[in-house]
Amino acid sequence: MSFSPLIRRLIDGLRGLPGVGPKTAQRMALHLLERDRDVARHLADALHAAMDGVGYCSRCRTLSEHDVCAICSDPRRDSSLLCILQSPADVWAVEQAGGFHGRYFVLKGQLSPIDGLGPEEIGIPALLEAVERSAIEESAVAEVILATNPTVEGEATAHYIANLLKPRGIKVSRIAHGVPLGGELEYIDGGTLAHALAGRTPIL
Amino acid sequence: MSFSPLIRRLIDGLRGLPGVGPKTAQRMALHLLERDRDVARHLADALHAAMDGVGYCSRCRTLSEHDVCAICSDPRRDSSLLCILQSPADVWAVEQAGGFHGRYFVLKGQLSPIDGLGPEEIGIPALLEAVERSAIEESAVAEVILATNPTVEGEATAHYIANLLKPRGIKVSRIAHGVPLGGELEYIDGGTLAHALAGRTPIL
Repeated sequence: MSFSPLIRRLIDGLRGLPGVGPKTAQRMALHLLERDRDVARHLADALHAAMDGVGYCSRCRTLSEHDVCAICSDPRRDSSLLCILQSPADVWAVEQAGGFHGRYFVLKGQLSPIDGLGPEEIGIPALLEAVERSAIEESAVAEVILATNPTVEGEATAHYIANLLKPRGIKVSRIAHGVPLGGELEYIDGGTLAHALAGRTPIL
Repeated sequence: MSFSPLIRRLIDGLRGLPGVGPKTAQRMALHLLERDRDVARHLADALHAAMDGVGYCSRCRTLSEHDVCAICSDPRRDSSLLCILQSPADVWAVEQAGGFHGRYFVLKGQLSPIDGLGPEEIGIPALLEAVERSAIEESAVAEVILATNPTVEGEATAHYIANLLKPRGIKVSRIAHGVPLGGELEYIDGGTLAHALAGRTPIL
């Protein structure tokens, strides 16, 4: 005997979640059916509500359920500082770290010609437009912080954007790369260590 | 900034799944919103359909979307053999192992007086009724196989049922406990090993 159609469909649905394989999906389905039917109904409603209600902020392009997201519409954020990220998850990570009070612009990934991702596809024209619009409006962007991932593609994306913005008289910076806090030198990869040494900063 | 309400609700909903913590839920929510909105909608529909449509088989008490499940309504199954399990997941496991062609009866867990689970709560009266009804109907149960878990509570449950059925002239057996196939003796716990030695069977 195999599973009945509704249970089969539930297991297949759960397998669509990232990191959930057949055994885990089966365990989840059984748990929900046997113990947590209300939890399952709440999850179903939350899924529908989020998929229907969450779109993208028309300014920074992060996930938002309003046309302009909470950060872009907050007048206390410093609009002269613009941090460029490559996914909404990165916005969440920077916000949770705290300490940054500027605004964001979220690219759709990073430049990757092999995957057919050029400047158009990842939204660089929209970024330039946002920077230019800010110069006309009340609050010009004075500094752009490039916080794409420290990978080959992320670096290429950062350099590409830097080359476009520099001639417009905007200060462009890159987040620091080096040894993470709490890391032990012994366990850090050679590339990071070489980067940390080359990028050393004066102390005292 | 924290997450917007709909995203927050989605993350909370996903955390209701067993084994999903806050970081995993956040990653799942982002993945669904950014890449797989159709998958999310299918999952939501599958959840509703399963929660509304799946109940319990009125005979064997496993999860079923019909009053009588596919196994109980299959005339080719041997109704003289009844396997007692303690959850619908165990039915799936035995069916997937193959080789068993009798029927099942699913208890609601195992006897556990500390948790307030007595014979009534786990459905032992219903089991006796099913056995008695089978004697009146066409096909009497000749042998009951006790396949509760090999834990203290599972053993107690098996013995309790055996003591009730033996006087009714029904053959009662317990699944074999011992070294699992493919296991290496070196890594098997002492209790299992002692059990495997005591329960040795003649060869040749």
